[in-house]
Amino acid sequence: MEFTVQIRVTLRPSILDPQGKATHHALEQLGFEGIRSVRMGKFIALRVEARSEEEAREMAAAVCGKLLANPVMEDFEIEDAVPTVA
Amino acid sequence: MEFTVQIRVTLRPSILDPQGKATHHALEQLGFEGIRSVRMGKFIALRVEARSEEEAREMAAAVCGKLLANPVMEDFEIEDAVPTVA
Repeated sequence: MEFTVQIRVTLRPSILDPQGKATHHALEQLGFEGIRSVRMGKFIALRVEARSEEEAREMAAAVCGKLLANPVMEDFEIEDAVPTVA
Repeated sequence: MEFTVQIRVTLRPSILDPQGKATHHALEQLGFEGIRSVRMGKFIALRVEARSEEEAREMAAAVCGKLLANPVMEDFEIEDAVPTVA
């Protein structure tokens, strides 16, 4: 059974985010007011073959721990795991 | 009042995702089995000064339409907007 797992990878709060800073600056240049900060992360949608939602989540966590997230600088969160809608 | 708005930017389904393809390939090389596809997107956390949750969401949508998402290739979704927890 195929599951779609949605994953969010974010920089740890203590880590500087130059991409977010640059985006913040660009927004100010464009005239947007009231933006206090911008932090950029990754969103990943993984389609996996698994027997259960739990197994799909475990596969996603293993994949994040091994490749998708850098454990020194990033946190990951599995937002959702649902059977893939064709 | 400060709100934290969480935004997800994804490639439209019809758009090829070379970064996702490369990640998929890397996972296969690492021995992960059962991965069917990987799609990469962006996750953005915006802190904005607004009078209401609705205003915070509107600001985030304006920012996405103007800079954060490419309307030709990407979709954006405002996942959540909540008062910032200090």
